[in-house]
This record gives sequence, structure tokens and C-alpha cells, in this order.
Amino acid sequence: MMRRMAKTKKSAKASAKSSKKDGKGKVGKKLSKEAKAKLEAAQHIVEEEAAKATKAKKVKNSGPADFAEALRVGPGFVLADVDPASTPGFAGDRDAGEALLPALGVAVGDLQERLYAESKGGGKRSLLLVVQGMDTSGKGGIMRHVVGAVDPQGVHITAFKAPTAEERAHPFLWRMTNALPSPGMIGVFDRSQYEDVLIVRVHNLVPRAQWGRRYNQINTWEKKVAAAGTTIVKVMLHISRDEQKARLAERLANPEKHWKFNPGDLDERALWDDYQSAYQVALEKCSTDVAPWYVVPADKKWYARLAVMNLMLGALKGMDPQWPAGTFDVAEQQARLEQS
Amino acid sequence: MMRRMAKTKKSAKASAKSSKKDGKGKVGKKLSKEAKAKLEAAQHIVEEEAAKATKAKKVKNSGPADFAEALRVGPGFVLADVDPASTPGFAGDRDAGEALLPALGVAVGDLQERLYAESKGGGKRSLLLVVQGMDTSGKGGIMRHVVGAVDPQGVHITAFKAPTAEERAHPFLWRMTNALPSPGMIGVFDRSQYEDVLIVRVHNLVPRAQWGRRYNQINTWEKKVAAAGTTIVKVMLHISRDEQKARLAERLANPEKHWKFNPGDLDERALWDDYQSAYQVALEKCSTDVAPWYVVPADKKWYARLAVMNLMLGALKGMDPQWPAGTFDVAEQQARLEQS
Repeated sequence: MMRRMAKTKKSAKASAKSSKKDGKGKVGKKLSKEAKAKLEAAQHIVEEEAAKATKAKKVKNSGPADFAEALRVGPGFVLADVDPASTPGFAGDRDAGEALLPALGVAVGDLQERLYAESKGGGKRSLLLVVQGMDTSGKGGIMRHVVGAVDPQGVHITAFKAPTAEERAHPFLWRMTNALPSPGMIGVFDRSQYEDVLIVRVHNLVPRAQWGRRYNQINTWEKKVAAAGTTIVKVMLHISRDEQKARLAERLANPEKHWKFNPGDLDERALWDDYQSAYQVALEKCSTDVAPWYVVPADKKWYARLAVMNLMLGALKGMDPQWPAGTFDVAEQQARLEQS
Repeated sequence: MMRRMAKTKKSAKASAKSSKKDGKGKVGKKLSKEAKAKLEAAQHIVEEEAAKATKAKKVKNSGPADFAEALRVGPGFVLADVDPASTPGFAGDRDAGEALLPALGVAVGDLQERLYAESKGGGKRSLLLVVQGMDTSGKGGIMRHVVGAVDPQGVHITAFKAPTAEERAHPFLWRMTNALPSPGMIGVFDRSQYEDVLIVRVHNLVPRAQWGRRYNQINTWEKKVAAAGTTIVKVMLHISRDEQKARLAERLANPEKHWKFNPGDLDERALWDDYQSAYQVALEKCSTDVAPWYVVPADKKWYARLAVMNLMLGALKGMDPQWPAGTFDVAEQQARLEQS
């Protein structure tokens, strides 16, 4: 139901923006009565929702830029200084955050549809969301509640596990290159090239000299990917050691979550500090202008979802995808259709 | 918001089923107080929703079996006899149908999660949904509103376009074999192997003798796929010629939908009767016990979505996926976690 409504709002909102842009009335005039009515109804719903959230909580609705600014990894960044329970860029509480999420999902879905449409007109752009984080940091929840807000036809999720024999026979970036999003798509990496300087570094799965070169190799690769039209957003979900303990305990307490638990998770947990150090190095070496890192405090799941949704929205707004012009004569085709 | 709530209901419902199954109280006892509270709250919501839908419309809520029975292609099936505006297996109207969809989506998502969990315990089963239909029959809407109800991590959609040079160099089923769902996943084919006996037949893209052999080849292939653990559900979205005209007119009237229109669509439309005949043959030759065809009247989008959701739900219920047993000693792991 919500998704249906969301979709209606989405189309209507898209119409609104497009008709605003065409001040000459060229597009505006072509809007059907039905579309206008839908548009007005949808605007009303969106305004009502926003008003409700703001009024109830009396908070300023942070925009995507607030999240990006508050979370971006810049010079002198220290991971240990980030409080995993904090909510940078957002003054509201859980209720306020959750109230905002659906409308943001609609906006992200809307822009993805435009991006896809743009690609059908020859556009080559795409978005890549890289999601990293310790076990139980909520990567799955981001996939379900943030990425899940977008039309599944517009999204390609790749979960990178331990490399297969075939993958190991290739340079480490080979399998990521194969998983890059096609034009118009949102690609999502659930784990990524960064595992090759995280778990690989912590366990010295390859010689030190080899993983030591990878930071530069990753930067070079990401620069090339960006130059080819892919906007890159990299997110680290940052949880505390205590929160991980609580989440693992929850998995152990619930038989239906046992399949998500592996005794090896506790071996990795014992290396917590080594992983934090490895993250620190990856974050400081690989947060670039074309592929910035964002560290998202993730002890509060609602905040992490709100933040990642805003980061995606900000990236898509920055891309500003455009509906492609038709390559046919509309009146001519309408006449053909009429006679068919 | 809806998706969040849905997820909560989903987990709670899963708990309910599992505890019912373990009458010995083995699993039941392990449910936390929180889980029980969630469960009760969720059951309340589900009951309320169902009651609302039933009361408001005074209709019998059809179950998945009603849809499957009403829509399945059996001996003597005649496509031309199916009214594209009808709603077989469902006595309610649009409001009633739309009210039912979210709870069905939750149920499908729940079962997919179980199927995925089962695969983590070594299970090899998966579900394949094949979606066919004329242009504008609503395939995209099925992807968005039906498939989109499932966790995107559990779904893999493949849209089959005109085959590439590489694909043409292989037997026609090669690319479908490559796109089959992994264990635990729901695979979705947006168009499929059937294009090789539809557009290919209508335009004689390969010699008649070659496409003539494909019906048997498809049946043999589907039998093998099913034997390997993939439950197959094949859906044809059946619209009327007039409805297609209206939908194409809508695309032409809205500049934001122009990218979805191609003058070639009208050339294909001119071959309407040829396509209907090709569908008739494919439906009668390839509706088998292991891979049945369902013809879903699709002039009413809400009905088509409700029907396909029910067909997926029925298939998953029939599979009855199970949470895998943990392979570790829970108490031992809890003790390890406590000390970590």
C-alpha cells in the first residue's frame, strides 16, 4: 500500500519538478488533468507528512548536505573519536527520523528512475554505494530498508564473500570491476574492495608489501570508475564493541537467527582493535574527492538508515539526471496509434 | 515506514509459525519476552487489516490456491476465451485487492527469508518467476510492486533483451541457464526463453524448423531446472488490444514517459494477432506439472499484482522452507560471547 502510494507520489513529484523546470509551459501544458490532480494530491500528502514530523518533534529537518558534511572523512580524521551512538547532522529523535525515511525513499526512487531514463537516452552515468562495517553493523538493514525503497529493477546488489578460486586467480579488483553498475543503475557493494585491506591486512592473507600497495591501487581504480560516469559513495557503518556484543547475543538467543551466527564471528570479534586500526588507515588513505568515505554512526539503526538514505539522495541530487528528449514526432506517433 | 513495520511483523510471524511447529515447547521456550510482545502486536495488526478489508468489502479473501486454480493453463486452454478485464479467483474490487497486497508481501518476504536461511544450512532450493506479456502489459509494475515487496538481497531480476552477439553464439537457453537463481533466492525473468518462440516465431528470426523444436527443448530444460531444486512459476500478463492502445496513448501524452516509447512498439502492435497465436501455442505446449503457466488477466493492474503475489505465495508455501538448525552449541557460544 505504502509502496503504491509512494509510487504515485513519485510520479507526481517528478511531474512537478519537470513542469517547474519548463517555465515556458512546454511540458506543463502537456500534463493531463489526471496527472495534475495526482500531483496536487501527492504534494498535499508530502506536505502533511513533513509538517507532522516537524511539528511533533520541533526539529529542523536536516538536508542531505548536512549529513554529507557531518559524516565525510576529511584530513585529520580519527575513527576512534566518532561516537557510534551519536547522530551527526540530525537533531531529531528516532520517531522523527523514521517519519522522514519514506519520503526520502520516494525522492531517491524518483531520481533513480530519471537516471535510468537518462541512460535510455544515451546517458552513461550510474551510482555506486559501497557499504562496509563490522559484523552486525547493520549492512543487511541498509539493503532492506534503504536500498529496498528503490524499484528493484534499478538496483544491483553484489555481496562480496571470500573470493573464489577463479576470483583469486585475477587481480583483486577484477571482481569489483565486473560488478560495477550499468548506466542508469544504482550498484550496491555489500562489502567491497576494502576487504582486501581489512580482513586481508588483519590476517595477512597476502604479504604485507602486497596489501600495502592496494590503497593506491584502489584510489586509481576508483578515479577511473568515477571518470567513466559512476558517482561513488562509500559508507562505513560504525558500531561500538558493546553494541556488537548485544547484537550477537540477540542472534544467539533467537533460534531463527542462528543461521546468521558463526562461531568464527567471535574469533573476528577478538581482533576488534586490529580491525579498527585497519579501518582507520583505509579511511584516511582512500577518502578522495571523487570517492569520499562517510563514517555513519550505527549503534542506532534508525539513524544509520536515515543517514545513508540522505547520502544517496545527496549524490543523486548532485548528479541531477534529466528525462531524455523523445527521438520521435509525438503527433505522428499519436496518429499512427489512433489508427492501429 | 510501512516496510519497517512489515519487517517487524515478518519476524514476529516467523516466530509464531516456528513455535507452533515445535509443540514440544523446545523452540517456544526460547522466545524472548520482547519477541512474544512483538508477535502479539503483529498478529493484532494483521488481524485488524484483514478484518478491515473483509468488513469494508464483504468479500471472501481468496487464498493462493484459488488464484492458482483459476489461472492455471490446463488441457483445452484457449487464450482468446480469457477476458483480460476479469478477476478470476477474486470476488473483491480494487480497494479490497489493494488492501490485501501489503500483508501478502510480508508473507512472501517471510518465506523468502526462510528459503534463504535454509540455503545457508545447505538447502539447494530456489524459486523462479517467469513474467511474459505484450508491451505495456505491466511487467514493470509487477517488478516494482510485487517483487519489490521482498528484501532486495533475496531477489535477482534478469531482464532479457534482444540477445547480444555472444548470446547468439550459444544455444538459446544458455543465457537463461546463467541467470537461474542461486539457492535461497527468488529469481525473476522479465521476458525469458519464451521470447525464442514468440518474437522469434512471429518474425521468423530463425528458420521455422529451428523454433519449432524449441517447445520441447524448453520443456526438457525446465524439467531439469525443477529437478535441481528450482520451483518454477510462469506468468503471462494478458491485456486487451484496447487496453494496450490506452496505455501507449498515456505514454505518448506524458513527456516523462516518452523514453518508454519506441515507434517500433506500434509495428509490433500491428502483429497483435500473430503474437496471440504464438502465445496460445507456447501456453498449450509448455504448461507442465513442474513448470505450469498461469494466464493473469492484466487490464486491471491491481488484480494482476494481487494474482502474481498470490501465485508466488502459493509456490513458497508449497515449498515450506525451514529454518536450519544451528551447527554449534548455543550455551558454549553464549559463554564465549560473554567473556569477549
